[in-house]
Amino acid sequence: MVPDRLKRLASTLQEKGIEHALLSSFVSLRYFTGYQATVELEPSPITPLLGAFLWIRGEQPTLYLADMEPGEGIVASVRRESFSSYIIERPMFAIQDLSAKLVTKLRPLPASKVAIEPEEIPAALLDALRSECPHLEFRSIKDVLSTFRMVKDAEEIETMRGALALCDLGQKMAKQQATAGRTEIEIFSSVRQAMEAQEGGRVPIIADVVSGSRTALTGGPPSARKLKAGELLIVDLVPRHLGYWGDSCNTACAGEPKMEYKEAFDGLAAVLSDAIGKVRPGLRACDLDRVVRNGVAKLGGSYPHHTGHGLGISWHEEPRIVPYNTIPLEPDMIIALEPGMYFEGNWGMRLEYVLRVTASGAEVLSNYRHEL
Amino acid sequence: MVPDRLKRLASTLQEKGIEHALLSSFVSLRYFTGYQATVELEPSPITPLLGAFLWIRGEQPTLYLADMEPGEGIVASVRRESFSSYIIERPMFAIQDLSAKLVTKLRPLPASKVAIEPEEIPAALLDALRSECPHLEFRSIKDVLSTFRMVKDAEEIETMRGALALCDLGQKMAKQQATAGRTEIEIFSSVRQAMEAQEGGRVPIIADVVSGSRTALTGGPPSARKLKAGELLIVDLVPRHLGYWGDSCNTACAGEPKMEYKEAFDGLAAVLSDAIGKVRPGLRACDLDRVVRNGVAKLGGSYPHHTGHGLGISWHEEPRIVPYNTIPLEPDMIIALEPGMYFEGNWGMRLEYVLRVTASGAEVLSNYRHEL
Repeated sequence: MVPDRLKRLASTLQEKGIEHALLSSFVSLRYFTGYQATVELEPSPITPLLGAFLWIRGEQPTLYLADMEPGEGIVASVRRESFSSYIIERPMFAIQDLSAKLVTKLRPLPASKVAIEPEEIPAALLDALRSECPHLEFRSIKDVLSTFRMVKDAEEIETMRGALALCDLGQKMAKQQATAGRTEIEIFSSVRQAMEAQEGGRVPIIADVVSGSRTALTGGPPSARKLKAGELLIVDLVPRHLGYWGDSCNTACAGEPKMEYKEAFDGLAAVLSDAIGKVRPGLRACDLDRVVRNGVAKLGGSYPHHTGHGLGISWHEEPRIVPYNTIPLEPDMIIALEPGMYFEGNWGMRLEYVLRVTASGAEVLSNYRHEL
Repeated sequence: MVPDRLKRLASTLQEKGIEHALLSSFVSLRYFTGYQATVELEPSPITPLLGAFLWIRGEQPTLYLADMEPGEGIVASVRRESFSSYIIERPMFAIQDLSAKLVTKLRPLPASKVAIEPEEIPAALLDALRSECPHLEFRSIKDVLSTFRMVKDAEEIETMRGALALCDLGQKMAKQQATAGRTEIEIFSSVRQAMEAQEGGRVPIIADVVSGSRTALTGGPPSARKLKAGELLIVDLVPRHLGYWGDSCNTACAGEPKMEYKEAFDGLAAVLSDAIGKVRPGLRACDLDRVVRNGVAKLGGSYPHHTGHGLGISWHEEPRIVPYNTIPLEPDMIIALEPGMYFEGNWGMRLEYVLRVTASGAEVLSNYRHEL
């Protein structure tokens, strides 16, 4: 729940001796206000920043939002204020207007520290604030925020079940469509059409849809390539539902797979299943990665990517399941595990499930079956 | 052509006494290097910046691109260099790596000025460059760039014809689908499916698909609302093709329209046609807006939005056809004109064509017919 997240932010800032916060990343806006920003388009030519979240100690938190934004999902405890993004009476001035509104709130403060996300605030905005408010020190809390959303609350878990239900539907449809003669883009369009019918609205989606020798590339966007009988098809679907991302991957075969594919598929499924069986609180991300990496190594092929990652408001977040990462798993982390094996120029295969770490193990949240 | 654009940039900078340029906006990367960035997803959780374009006087221009980016479309005359965005051996450090690479090039320069886009460069990156290169002055060229791409070159016009052909296909399909019982989202999904089949790949698209009383809102995303017999449907389709956006809008009726709709439709079509007839080089954007605004006023209803806008690498750019804008039209500007009329809580209608300003008038680039 947003109010609990704000309390946690407040106490984290207090520990660090920082009084206030001005957050501007896409993910922070969603996490701390409920706002489900529009995606599916390039950076807006109207305003480089859709919104900024200002939290001044002791005051009601405020989301400054471009007036063109519908602002879906904002919770009642967060005040919404607009800044002007595009009107027909004068040239555009979004950042100037936002900056002026923020300065009105920041200038009267006593000398203090303000947490920011320096990688996600435009230099023009920060320059303006620094120049108008020389008594404030703007300090990065990037490190804190990078692990802040790892453990999901009940509301998030519920929303993610919805995102994963879209994955289930999409994978079933993709498997049905994996027949000789269909193009990758036809399969992809049909999959998304089914998702959008179920969702009753647009579904932003990131997807790998690759067939034949393209499967050796690990992924790529759907092309006009036609699937041939006996070829593999990797379908990795990452749809967004109410601001949260699901994730899923299956590898199917158009028609009867040859023995080599069957054996690889069974081997890979066993590696994934074995890894899921080892998930429990306290297990370090790097150790989980090692289990999978060792398992895949026995099957042959290359394995040039991560074993998995956290997901939620972003489609790729901590805990990343990679060799360097010593973060231990905790209950209610939600992670994707996606072992794969690839033979350069020839073929590749990947299987993925998303699971929730429980008090004693893992609950698999994906409800489709891996089917070759 | 990219080389001509770079020459024009060089001479503009020279006039302003600026030696070099470091550009980081999405549109500048496309315009000055050919790079067709991936869209259709939220800001990347891997790197806040996909790329940066560095042009040092007398040297080959370089595009620094995140190593996860395929980098489609980059022209041969631009050097490509990667910065690290995500590897499994160590925590992510995209901005640090990009910054270090840029500093290597910038530090040896003599004291000089570097043009930047301060609204589209993360504060973290600019702070690092300023701190490592105190002998350089980073100066905004936002104003110059806001009108830099207004007049399209031959290559751009050709690419935009492709984007507009997608609009034509989409509008034909939408008109066919505008029947009682279909939902807005079903219509939208079918339209995009047709576009993706023709394109042989994914088609990013911005769209208003609203029916019944929702048409009075001017626009909105497709919902699960079912179209009823006799109701209106506004379909505004803005698809992206090779990095360039098309635009189009029609208003259709499910079944036989009532007389009020027919008269409004004919009136609006006449306003649009009249406006197109007046387009010629030298006509100011505000005067074109006035022609349309006066015409629509006679039909009744409200008209709360712009009359049109330029488009190209972004879906909304100069010349904006709005009351304040005194920019005169020039040959090879490409503009969308989209008069509409709206009756609050009741119904609305909008018709749009995209046209190219020619030496003596206008060439309509849209090839679908407005059909109620």
